Amino acid sequence: MKKLTTIIVILASSAFSQAQVQQSSSDSSWIASIYNEVMLHGECYENLRYLCKSIGHRLAGSESAQKAIEWGKATLEQSAADHVFLMPVEVPHWTRGGYEYGGYKLSGQSKEVALTALGGSVGTEGKRITAEVLEVKNFDELKALGEAKVRGKIVFFNKPLDATLINTGAAYGGGYPIRGQGPSEAAKLGAVACLIRSLTLADDNYPHTGATNYEEGVKRIPAAALSAVAARQLSQDLKNNPRLEFNLQLSCEAFERTMQANVVAEIRGTEFPDEYITVGGHLDSWDIGEGAHDDGTGIVQSIEMIRTLKAIGYKPKRTIRAVLFINEEFGNDGGETYARVCKEAGLVHIGALESDGGGFTPVGFNCDLSDAHYDKVQSWLPLLEPYNLFRFRRGGSGVDIRPLKDDRIALFGLNVDGQRYFDYHHTNNDRFENVNKRELELGAAAMTALVYLMDSKGLD
Amino acid sequence: MKKLTTIIVILASSAFSQAQVQQSSSDSSWIASIYNEVMLHGECYENLRYLCKSIGHRLAGSESAQKAIEWGKATLEQSAADHVFLMPVEVPHWTRGGYEYGGYKLSGQSKEVALTALGGSVGTEGKRITAEVLEVKNFDELKALGEAKVRGKIVFFNKPLDATLINTGAAYGGGYPIRGQGPSEAAKLGAVACLIRSLTLADDNYPHTGATNYEEGVKRIPAAALSAVAARQLSQDLKNNPRLEFNLQLSCEAFERTMQANVVAEIRGTEFPDEYITVGGHLDSWDIGEGAHDDGTGIVQSIEMIRTLKAIGYKPKRTIRAVLFINEEFGNDGGETYARVCKEAGLVHIGALESDGGGFTPVGFNCDLSDAHYDKVQSWLPLLEPYNLFRFRRGGSGVDIRPLKDDRIALFGLNVDGQRYFDYHHTNNDRFENVNKRELELGAAAMTALVYLMDSKGLD
Repeated sequence: MKKLTTIIVILASSAFSQAQVQQSSSDSSWIASIYNEVMLHGECYENLRYLCKSIGHRLAGSESAQKAIEWGKATLEQSAADHVFLMPVEVPHWTRGGYEYGGYKLSGQSKEVALTALGGSVGTEGKRITAEVLEVKNFDELKALGEAKVRGKIVFFNKPLDATLINTGAAYGGGYPIRGQGPSEAAKLGAVACLIRSLTLADDNYPHTGATNYEEGVKRIPAAALSAVAARQLSQDLKNNPRLEFNLQLSCEAFERTMQANVVAEIRGTEFPDEYITVGGHLDSWDIGEGAHDDGTGIVQSIEMIRTLKAIGYKPKRTIRAVLFINEEFGNDGGETYARVCKEAGLVHIGALESDGGGFTPVGFNCDLSDAHYDKVQSWLPLLEPYNLFRFRRGGSGVDIRPLKDDRIALFGLNVDGQRYFDYHHTNNDRFENVNKRELELGAAAMTALVYLMDSKGLD
Repeated sequence: MKKLTTIIVILASSAFSQAQVQQSSSDSSWIASIYNEVMLHGECYENLRYLCKSIGHRLAGSESAQKAIEWGKATLEQSAADHVFLMPVEVPHWTRGGYEYGGYKLSGQSKEVALTALGGSVGTEGKRITAEVLEVKNFDELKALGEAKVRGKIVFFNKPLDATLINTGAAYGGGYPIRGQGPSEAAKLGAVACLIRSLTLADDNYPHTGATNYEEGVKRIPAAALSAVAARQLSQDLKNNPRLEFNLQLSCEAFERTMQANVVAEIRGTEFPDEYITVGGHLDSWDIGEGAHDDGTGIVQSIEMIRTLKAIGYKPKRTIRAVLFINEEFGNDGGETYARVCKEAGLVHIGALESDGGGFTPVGFNCDLSDAHYDKVQSWLPLLEPYNLFRFRRGGSGVDIRPLKDDRIALFGLNVDGQRYFDYHHTNNDRFENVNKRELELGAAAMTALVYLMDSKGLD
């Protein structure tokens, strides 16, 4: 009897593993087809060239953002999506204006420094602000100095990001509060303007813009970021001459909010068309450079995902969407609107995936999901490891898709080798030339492979 | 009794795991010290700047290679190694000469193409070779055409690397035989010269040099690599005009072999000074560009390893060496000599580590070792994963250290994200500017961490 049981168990487990092998071999070949298609016939690199070179930067609310929306719609239509539509989104409209100046006199010589207004900053009303500079490292140091020392000064937050953090996103996160809240914290104590050291790990002369968030009820003062080199130099010059007077002129202007749109493309599911998987990036960028890594790459990878599924003849069970979100950078209107519209329409999402960490070599996926979902996706790793996708890392997905969060959905972010990301981020140097074709394509293929796995296996 | 045994077992295993935890926590803090030292006070990036910008490319046998040897010795002395010495190595001496030309007439217009002689190629004796071009993909196609078709022609091997291989080293390996043996295979059938498509995955206009190996007893014909763009264009033009005549002039020259040196620095071990761990890269480069990723980065990382161990106050149990090998590119004389000299002196190596895949973000280590060693190093992974070192991958270590191979030694190669490596490899574009400071430093820290683990734990 014992023997018989053993035999049955052996037979049963052999049948089971046979089924597993078949399933896994079919999975392997779909994933291989995806990679081969993208690496040999990928269109994402040329799409990125067009977006960067023929459209260029595209701040939400701008004319070029409008052009990008039209291009995105046309490109997704060419990718053979079943259905492409625009979803209206209200966005802010702010411009840097044509003129920015920062500098000071040193030994009688005028010295201009590399700076750029923070996104959303007020301008200086056609005049130059001239004031002494108060250098501080952080909010505690600022508050300890108090109103008597701060009033009438330009506060200069000069703290490098923490270079010992291996995850550059964590280093950026450490500096983020200064860019967001620094100007209002300085204004509360009577400062007339605010300068920050750019949030970068590179030691170069590119200033990095990015949103600042004025606090309700606090005076809005002009705010700009100095390049790392300019910040170091100013700090040095302040040691020699603490009464040095800084001149700042910004021509920023805010206008009425305006209507733009998310671009949504979908392939309808064949078995469970009412279950959705959304994949995206953000179409808007800051208004300097070309918005290549941030986030042109996520846009062209999302389009490539749709193109690739069609090209290899994969018919998804579920409805797959590529969404080009508008205005991630300055209020996340596209992401918020998308989640609201989906909720109002009663759409059920099982998963969402975003690429917004740059078009670098992927190493896996960040994920924000239940324990059960996590166990499930971990079981997919052996299928992904041959492509150097090493991990599902808990924590983080993407700003645009985060509003979709509920108990059921699994959120993912493409996890890339981000060492270079904050060298380019929000600068004039975020250009097409700094994106490597293969790295971009590997990201697109990794995203498509995860979509295939989510779709073909489900998440429950 | 059973109860007592159980208690003893519990106590024993608890004491054991306590010891493990303590050991592991001390390991973690040594590794954290290594990373903090390199990321905050690293000198490898500025060392690389000097090597690339003030010395430049440094083909073995050249004057600049001699300068690099002197610089390497001085820099290692400043890194506070206990002992630095030169180990004489006989190396070849070949020069490209001052003139290279490749081109053809098209519709009456002369068209120059981007090409460069393969390393070791003979020159064209001050004349232009003019001949029709026979394009083939591989040796089989060449042989099938036979002597009647090949004689008097310039054979043009035009086969792109396989872009679907995720490991770019494997793609390069697939093209390597054509560069090495192509010229002799063509000469055997009477060809007058040989052109190859550069071994690259990039679609640009940089030609890639690299060693060719003439077969003994076969006529040596001039050989050059065309850029990817030039190869595509020539292939297209041959379709329109199969009788097109190509002009080739190369001014390469070979001289007598000469003496140069490996640079060896060591920190003597405190407990087992007769057990050696060698860490290195190759100091020579090809004679175009600056030899930044190939292999200036491996050189400055090896120097950084010595500097860092000293800076954090780690006293190795075993003798740790940094070796700057001479002439990896054109015969591996440095590696062969080093292994021979070590063997003759009866030195026992427990491990060796090389960095020769470019100064990109590390993802782990390649390794060539016994199963027992493999199990041991796998147990170190949890200590390395916080630094995004994901794997010990079996297969491959480094050309310079491979001659040290014996039953006892564990050989490692820094395993980096190599997607961009073959864009720069052996070209004018292998420049300092294309190395990212943090990526370089992460590699140096990873290498130092592995040295710490090998040294402190041993491998047996």
